[in-house]
Amino acid sequence: SFEIETLFFPDKRIICWNFLFSKCRDESCGYCHDCEAPLARLVKTLQNAKRSIDLALFEITSEELTQALLDKLKEGVRVRLIIDSEYMMTTGSKLGKISSAGCEFIHDHTHGLFHHKFAIVDSQLVISGSMNWTRQAAIGNYENVLLVKDKNTALDFEKEYAKMWEEITDR
Amino acid sequence: SFEIETLFFPDKRIICWNFLFSKCRDESCGYCHDCEAPLARLVKTLQNAKRSIDLALFEITSEELTQALLDKLKEGVRVRLIIDSEYMMTTGSKLGKISSAGCEFIHDHTHGLFHHKFAIVDSQLVISGSMNWTRQAAIGNYENVLLVKDKNTALDFEKEYAKMWEEITDR
Ligand SMILES: [Zn+2]
Ligand SMILES: [Zn+2]
Repeated sequence: SFEIETLFFPDKRIICWNFLFSKCRDESCGYCHDCEAPLARLVKTLQNAKRSIDLALFEITSEELTQALLDKLKEGVRVRLIIDSEYMMTTGSKLGKISSAGCEFIHDHTHGLFHHKFAIVDSQLVISGSMNWTRQAAIGNYENVLLVKDKNTALDFEKEYAKMWEEITDR
Repeated sequence: SFEIETLFFPDKRIICWNFLFSKCRDESCGYCHDCEAPLARLVKTLQNAKRSIDLALFEITSEELTQALLDKLKEGVRVRLIIDSEYMMTTGSKLGKISSAGCEFIHDHTHGLFHHKFAIVDSQLVISGSMNWTRQAAIGNYENVLLVKDKNTALDFEKEYAKMWEEITDR
């Protein structure tokens, strides 16, 4: 059994923070409360993780995606991250925050880019596409992200993840 | 019915040009002849197009992917391209070459990036991932590309493509 869901950006609406992470009780709240909004779908997909999230990211500055990861780390979900070394300390990088919260991470410092923007959730769902995990990407760029719930695809990504982890650690 | 194939890069091997585009009869050829090499799979996927290729690209400098498109244009396959305006004339851009060969194209000149790296082949297969269509990406970067043969996914991308084409043309 498989499912594929496609998310397209930009979505210029600002999603209500309370709506995403608790509940919004403000009846005059002007922010977006649409659970089908692409960024809300991404956050929800991370929130649904039960055991593990394996991240391979060029960069991470998105407040919303970071908060979802911090919540998962607090719950005891294992979160790992491989990130490009050049962008890991870029302005607004959330690497410090998520590594302090217990995320294991390594960085790739080869000349080529570590250009992935994918996550594997519970070894069964893959998030992948053109979109870096930044606020700019979600609200300003034309981007696509696929949510692929397919065992074989997840397995392919897990194998590549293990291979990269070893390769980059050993370098 | 659906199929998903995942390609991972970098693949530092240089694929034999003759092997990709005609036949390599050189028994001492030192270039790669592996039809499962990820770049060879991408070229093959374009070569299999019968009717249409809709491209949404941040940039295109890859000689191999360009040649596959030129061959298709010559055969009469309809090729369309939406491309980011900032990178369309970057060093090594193949936009001039493929537009001269009959590819219809428009460029996005908004402040945000046109960051897609996808193609829809014959309205039934989607190529999408982190990888820009450059040589550097294929041989130097860590990248992933999904080949998704699924009608619903292709339909989602076709709808978004039509929407973007209109939006960007009208701007
Ligand atoms: Zn609200
Ligand atoms: Zn050869």
